[in-house]
Amino acid sequence: MSRVLSTSLSAHVGATVTAAGWVHRRRQLKSVTFLILRDAAGLAQVVVTAADLRARLADLPEESVVEVTGRVVGNPAAPAGVELVDPTVRPLGDPAVPPPFDVYRPELTAALPTQLDHAAVALRHPGRAAALRISAALVAGFRATLDRLGFVEVHTPKIVAAATESGANVFALDYFGRPGYLAQSPQFYKQMLVGVLERVYEVGPVFRAEPHDTTRHLAQYTSLDVEFGFVTDHRDVMRLLREVLAGMLGRLADLPTPPAEIPAVPPKIPAVHFTEALAVAGASPDEPDLAPAHERALGEWARAEHGSDFLFVTGYPLAKRPFYTHPATEDAPSGGPAAAYSNGFDLLFRGVELVTGGQRLRRYADYLAALARRGEPVEPYAGYLDAFRHGMPPHGGFAIGLERMVARLLGVANVREVTPFPRDLHRLTP
Amino acid sequence: MSRVLSTSLSAHVGATVTAAGWVHRRRQLKSVTFLILRDAAGLAQVVVTAADLRARLADLPEESVVEVTGRVVGNPAAPAGVELVDPTVRPLGDPAVPPPFDVYRPELTAALPTQLDHAAVALRHPGRAAALRISAALVAGFRATLDRLGFVEVHTPKIVAAATESGANVFALDYFGRPGYLAQSPQFYKQMLVGVLERVYEVGPVFRAEPHDTTRHLAQYTSLDVEFGFVTDHRDVMRLLREVLAGMLGRLADLPTPPAEIPAVPPKIPAVHFTEALAVAGASPDEPDLAPAHERALGEWARAEHGSDFLFVTGYPLAKRPFYTHPATEDAPSGGPAAAYSNGFDLLFRGVELVTGGQRLRRYADYLAALARRGEPVEPYAGYLDAFRHGMPPHGGFAIGLERMVARLLGVANVREVTPFPRDLHRLTP
Repeated sequence: MSRVLSTSLSAHVGATVTAAGWVHRRRQLKSVTFLILRDAAGLAQVVVTAADLRARLADLPEESVVEVTGRVVGNPAAPAGVELVDPTVRPLGDPAVPPPFDVYRPELTAALPTQLDHAAVALRHPGRAAALRISAALVAGFRATLDRLGFVEVHTPKIVAAATESGANVFALDYFGRPGYLAQSPQFYKQMLVGVLERVYEVGPVFRAEPHDTTRHLAQYTSLDVEFGFVTDHRDVMRLLREVLAGMLGRLADLPTPPAEIPAVPPKIPAVHFTEALAVAGASPDEPDLAPAHERALGEWARAEHGSDFLFVTGYPLAKRPFYTHPATEDAPSGGPAAAYSNGFDLLFRGVELVTGGQRLRRYADYLAALARRGEPVEPYAGYLDAFRHGMPPHGGFAIGLERMVARLLGVANVREVTPFPRDLHRLTP
Repeated sequence: MSRVLSTSLSAHVGATVTAAGWVHRRRQLKSVTFLILRDAAGLAQVVVTAADLRARLADLPEESVVEVTGRVVGNPAAPAGVELVDPTVRPLGDPAVPPPFDVYRPELTAALPTQLDHAAVALRHPGRAAALRISAALVAGFRATLDRLGFVEVHTPKIVAAATESGANVFALDYFGRPGYLAQSPQFYKQMLVGVLERVYEVGPVFRAEPHDTTRHLAQYTSLDVEFGFVTDHRDVMRLLREVLAGMLGRLADLPTPPAEIPAVPPKIPAVHFTEALAVAGASPDEPDLAPAHERALGEWARAEHGSDFLFVTGYPLAKRPFYTHPATEDAPSGGPAAAYSNGFDLLFRGVELVTGGQRLRRYADYLAALARRGEPVEPYAGYLDAFRHGMPPHGGFAIGLERMVARLLGVANVREVTPFPRDLHRLTP
């Protein structure tokens, strides 16, 4: 099928060409029908004056797929400054059943659950489709940055014998008659592969059996995971993360429909120690973690104080981080003992936790001690601990939540609005 | 840590530099110890003559991680033509526990199950690590080709409410108290997204509860999935696949350790109809499918007859393909009726099925009829069928099994040898 995409029509003024796509909208006026055709690239206006074709279009509801052959003429009022005139229209299949809501309106007006029930149609809304392209561009920027720095992409098991992050919130399955679990992160595998390739990343699904119904949690999300060796400490990891974020966001300006406001990544992202973060957020110095309200306050502070959409919070309390976390190598600025804190950090983006990362333990003896402190047995981790018994460099890494990043970037309230087919407490279809 | 990688040492002849990596091997001679250092890039030879350091090296077993500072001098007999002399060696962590098998030998000699039990160490073998880099390069070539052609990368649900390919071989899990299943393919989602983005691809895990213990099946593998709209028929899909394969294999020559023999992708990959394939393989014309022995025979025939490592088999019997398969639009060359065959194809690579693809149904009524013919209810597919009710273009696609491609490319007998942490009937760790 030789076909000109909507955005390329302007290169064919005066010629007769064939376009194809979905009937986005029909506007029937007294003596003319405007057919708005939607394809992968955008919209094209088709001007129909012939009475028989106008009559036939009445039987081609919105979302029907058609091929349109017509002459391209300039019209500054039309999308992309051109329109198709004197068209012939050939349906490619049966007329569509009209969708349960209008895809052509500026915003989808159906309630979110209705949209999600009919995701195959709702995603056709140009705003929804643009979010998918933004997501793909961010991932492309992530990979391009890391490829340039000598990282290798890996694919690791999603069915595991033991929970990685904690025993809770894990999906259990029947693995050939034995218990298996869906991986909550590729953490153990990316660390083991640092022992092989030094620098690795993975883009893949992670699974959390989140029992809470919130606007920012999903039962499956896409995690952008990085891990690399021969670091000095977590600050090397933070520097790499800054470069990766700049590479990701740098991809967005070229999109046909970029986000309204693409945040700048400061040359050095401001960082506050956990104890300072509590003070800035007005929280009690005894708080063991940052609540969402604290993160919002910190986001506002970073914007006001540093003009930054991004803020590192470093030195999280060791007790709140996973067992593989490296303890702090410096005292807290408040004078608190290093041993209570960690070389783990979070990155807040516009007041929401977007990335978790840090330096990891590397000595086998330290892993044994960390597991013992938490009362965890060693045996389920034997294959993982092998890496540390047999020589591992100092290393660290981070994980970015893709859907959350897109949601925050577009300022949408619910991460489900930018996830093609979300999975949560209540939803397993479509 | 300022550090020179092994392959870059030759640019520093005469200078004193710092390298870092794993003790790959120690060769203790009468008056000198050669320390072979392994890093992400390759191997470097360190010449140790000082008696005290030679003594200390006796306590740094293979796989210990060290930093070596020394002077770079040319030596044509050393890896990359240079070696480090007058070194200081600083351990980065505790001495390694010696691995259960030697990583430095040309081949791993331990039995495969032992290697897989200790994957964190076995993967450090340069041959194993090279396979991971080949895998990453193939995926990079896959994406680069499709990105250039306007495809958008997507990430779809891996937990689903109904089996996609057939009821068998599916992992069941507890999804918040309801039954859920691990997706056997992203088929339904990539088709729905053709209705949104026209051209999509996904690189992700798929899950098959394979009850058979074979050398070419895994319970989880990486599927490279493509789907696109506005095709004429399956031949457009085959043409795209040819271009994608060329893009993938074109990435390999630049690797530090490419496969010994990179196959050429013919400008037009030879194709035989299923009925011809049976005849070529010496099978009965009544056979409903190709057995592995038939595929091997066809692979040999393609090589002898067409000088090609690749062979398309088109027109598979409709009854053996999934319900979404488009029936054949041409009669079989044997004169068999089109309705019995399909616009579905397989691609054999060196006598093994590597890719399955074809044209899909696009009319809602055709889906209802296809499900009815198989005695399947419509309701579990409602969200998927929405796409077809509300307008879908003619479309098709394919799926490449990544691990199988790497195995065939390297000529290894068992796909587990090139899969970082394989999952099968017996194996759920590490």
